[in-house]
Amino acid sequence: MGKRWPCKATAERLLNESKSRVTELKNKGIEPHLAVVLVGDNPASKVYVSNKVKTCESLGIRSTFHKLEATTSTDDLLRIVDELNHDASVHGILVQLPLPPQIDESRIISGIEPDKDVDGFHPVNVGRLSLGEPGLVPCTPMGVMALLADCGAELSGMHAVVVGRSNIVGKPMAQLLLKANCTVSIIHSRTKNPAELCRQADLVVAAVGRPGLVDASWIKEGALVVDVGINEITDDALAEKLIPADSKKMAAYRKNGRVLYGDVHYASALGRAEMVTPVPGGVGKLTIAQLMANCVLAAERLGSR
Amino acid sequence: MGKRWPCKATAERLLNESKSRVTELKNKGIEPHLAVVLVGDNPASKVYVSNKVKTCESLGIRSTFHKLEATTSTDDLLRIVDELNHDASVHGILVQLPLPPQIDESRIISGIEPDKDVDGFHPVNVGRLSLGEPGLVPCTPMGVMALLADCGAELSGMHAVVVGRSNIVGKPMAQLLLKANCTVSIIHSRTKNPAELCRQADLVVAAVGRPGLVDASWIKEGALVVDVGINEITDDALAEKLIPADSKKMAAYRKNGRVLYGDVHYASALGRAEMVTPVPGGVGKLTIAQLMANCVLAAERLGSR
Repeated sequence: MGKRWPCKATAERLLNESKSRVTELKNKGIEPHLAVVLVGDNPASKVYVSNKVKTCESLGIRSTFHKLEATTSTDDLLRIVDELNHDASVHGILVQLPLPPQIDESRIISGIEPDKDVDGFHPVNVGRLSLGEPGLVPCTPMGVMALLADCGAELSGMHAVVVGRSNIVGKPMAQLLLKANCTVSIIHSRTKNPAELCRQADLVVAAVGRPGLVDASWIKEGALVVDVGINEITDDALAEKLIPADSKKMAAYRKNGRVLYGDVHYASALGRAEMVTPVPGGVGKLTIAQLMANCVLAAERLGSR
Repeated sequence: MGKRWPCKATAERLLNESKSRVTELKNKGIEPHLAVVLVGDNPASKVYVSNKVKTCESLGIRSTFHKLEATTSTDDLLRIVDELNHDASVHGILVQLPLPPQIDESRIISGIEPDKDVDGFHPVNVGRLSLGEPGLVPCTPMGVMALLADCGAELSGMHAVVVGRSNIVGKPMAQLLLKANCTVSIIHSRTKNPAELCRQADLVVAAVGRPGLVDASWIKEGALVVDVGINEITDDALAEKLIPADSKKMAAYRKNGRVLYGDVHYASALGRAEMVTPVPGGVGKLTIAQLMANCVLAAERLGSR
């Protein structure tokens, strides 16, 4: 029987390290500064942005919040991004995604100065990651690497299977694992027999957005399983399939008619894996902690110029 | 028994297509123009550069050749690259690698205007490839994709194993196969049991620089095998291990004391694979044909601005 793999300790380590580095920066007269841009009123985005701003405050990182109308045009947003690019007091720029449909997301991302692109989504940073050059790397996969480092696993030679090929998680995750000398396989919706390939993995990272897809039949005895998926379940049949009847989670579902659930069938996976990260309370904490680390890194690099 | 997989027809198709597109460009008053920069006197580089220039001529692509002293500094080379960046008559810039040790290769590659970077090595182009955005893609992996398209294989859902993780072949190859909906595994020197994983592949692309590494024990019955490796063998024992005693290749080795050999143990692999590309006379032809296609593409894009 596997264990719950809490991510809290790693998230706290990342936050503490950032806090010390913020102090060092301030001693040099540099106040790390994240500019957060939110367009429109997406309720989930508002929660994310508010959490990011609060976490900045708790570490002594200055944050400024730019709230724009839902009707903002691509050109208007580009102008604001460019002001932030040229504002020497700003070290990190985060434009909260998704953007309203009239905005060309790819033009906005490409418009951010790469050295301030704390999300690591700019093509230059994506390229640098692949080439092994210094840059800024997307927060979720970097946070997962920190978790793996803390668990003491020897990554070199490990077979890692990444489930999902998104630009935000799957692809950068694969690059980071490859750089850490893992053998890397990427499986996705078109993969034939995904369970068969995944069952060979020493490490599974699931980031595909399909609740409970990865169950015990996908998992080798003793594998490490990282669940990056965050899906909202609102369907009784699915809830009953995935959540043990007598669990707190099911009680919460019955009360609220909804519950967050990962890409891994947690109860099933625990039967074979060595460790499985929970959802919620897992990788999510790492993402925001790593965002802070990226802000600090950007400030260190820009401040030393 | 598998078949020799000649790449000549695909290379000719690519060259013919480029030729027509050159004619269309000239009809619009645009003469596609490749600038080739060679630093120093590396004999292999001189041959490569000369082949590239000749192939340009045969298609009606203008080429200019910039031959620089072996002692050229990074800053001097950057200045020349920047002149070419700003020369509106130039559509493609190719700095022949490797560069002498005093030159910072990564600064030079990053100094080329991405839209003229016909090698596809600039971080922006590497990032665009990963993100699925239009850019310029390294020639060898793009040429392999053209070969695969011509053989009529249904790539979607195929398990492709890429042997090697170089920036020039392995990584961009994996990105292109992933984009074509293959399941992709990347194996390398640290992989445990590489043969076991490779034996699951419907398609193997070997680009690791180890002569004859991939033999029948790595290959599934009926797999497609693309050999990107070009290694020079000068060792009798290795030659005898890899090359059939009564073959023309062995006769050539005995005569010259050297022979070119791929990463695939050709005779052994043919016993299990459906098709195997030969070395030489295989993928090499695709690379230069795709370089021409990249030049034409760059001219089309820059010319239409």
